[in-house]
Amino acid sequence: MITGHVFIATSLDGFIAREDGDIAWLLERDDPAEDHGYDAFIQGIDIILMGRGSFEKMQAVRPWPYIRPVIVLSSSLTQDDLPEDLAAKVRLSDASPEEVMRMLQSEGHRRVYVDGGLVIQSFLRAGLIADMVITRAPVLLGEGRSLFGSIAADIPLLHEETKSFPSGLVQSRYRIVA
Amino acid sequence: MITGHVFIATSLDGFIAREDGDIAWLLERDDPAEDHGYDAFIQGIDIILMGRGSFEKMQAVRPWPYIRPVIVLSSSLTQDDLPEDLAAKVRLSDASPEEVMRMLQSEGHRRVYVDGGLVIQSFLRAGLIADMVITRAPVLLGEGRSLFGSIAADIPLLHEETKSFPSGLVQSRYRIVA
Repeated sequence: MITGHVFIATSLDGFIAREDGDIAWLLERDDPAEDHGYDAFIQGIDIILMGRGSFEKMQAVRPWPYIRPVIVLSSSLTQDDLPEDLAAKVRLSDASPEEVMRMLQSEGHRRVYVDGGLVIQSFLRAGLIADMVITRAPVLLGEGRSLFGSIAADIPLLHEETKSFPSGLVQSRYRIVA
Repeated sequence: MITGHVFIATSLDGFIAREDGDIAWLLERDDPAEDHGYDAFIQGIDIILMGRGSFEKMQAVRPWPYIRPVIVLSSSLTQDDLPEDLAAKVRLSDASPEEVMRMLQSEGHRRVYVDGGLVIQSFLRAGLIADMVITRAPVLLGEGRSLFGSIAADIPLLHEETKSFPSGLVQSRYRIVA
């Protein structure tokens, strides 16, 4: 069965970026000497799903940081919007969360990295997330783009592990109780 | 110098209560056999400050749970609104955060427990909080009363300690960087 997995950082008040997308507040609190587990996480992932907002922020980054194929969920982007060198690495889809997961499963994928606030929210609402690794940076921003949003009913979680780092980052892993 | 201290629990998505004040989702995840540190915290506190919302939820609870004098910040409640047996234990004030802290300092108080979402927010904005112990319950609620709110500028924090409990509660202590 195909499963969705979240690995994301937020401010202590739950924002993944400022309203304008800025994440300098996060990068300046990251200590590259600390292993926050991203490499191990991505090794266990087949394919990466993100929204248009996340893709637009990343599309100019070279070397292209993703070692797995990427699907961008967007109803407005077309293949012509993709930089030429990404054409083989990035696909576009305007399918629903359920549809895109069915499609990926039929292609043989098993573990999907679900990234970006709105995409994570829609996958949580659809019951398609198996677990989440959430890393909190020690700062209050007051406003910005929220990791979480409204849901139809409570989502109970199982806490699996929490680690803290000298940088002040605190990382917790939760499983979604099915 | 007088200082404000926060000790509060939230859902993973940052709510301290549902919109109607309900905290059953929190109580059902609390394991009374676990020591979450409230008793040790309150021993180091001189006086408790809370908002009208928090007081109205607690005012019928007997035995009265607070072992320290309580000040309720409200511009609408009057001394006549207090249950008779609380008249000596609870004071009302409509002073600003700065004014009430000055008043408490002049009375000889040193460490103030600041409780309730809106009161905590106003004390954070006024720079009157020294540290916060935040305990996260493993559940997403989607909506409710937020612990944090808008602020004029980022508030950097110093992470001091994080503990997790078999119940799934995760408790972090942060100092506000002055």
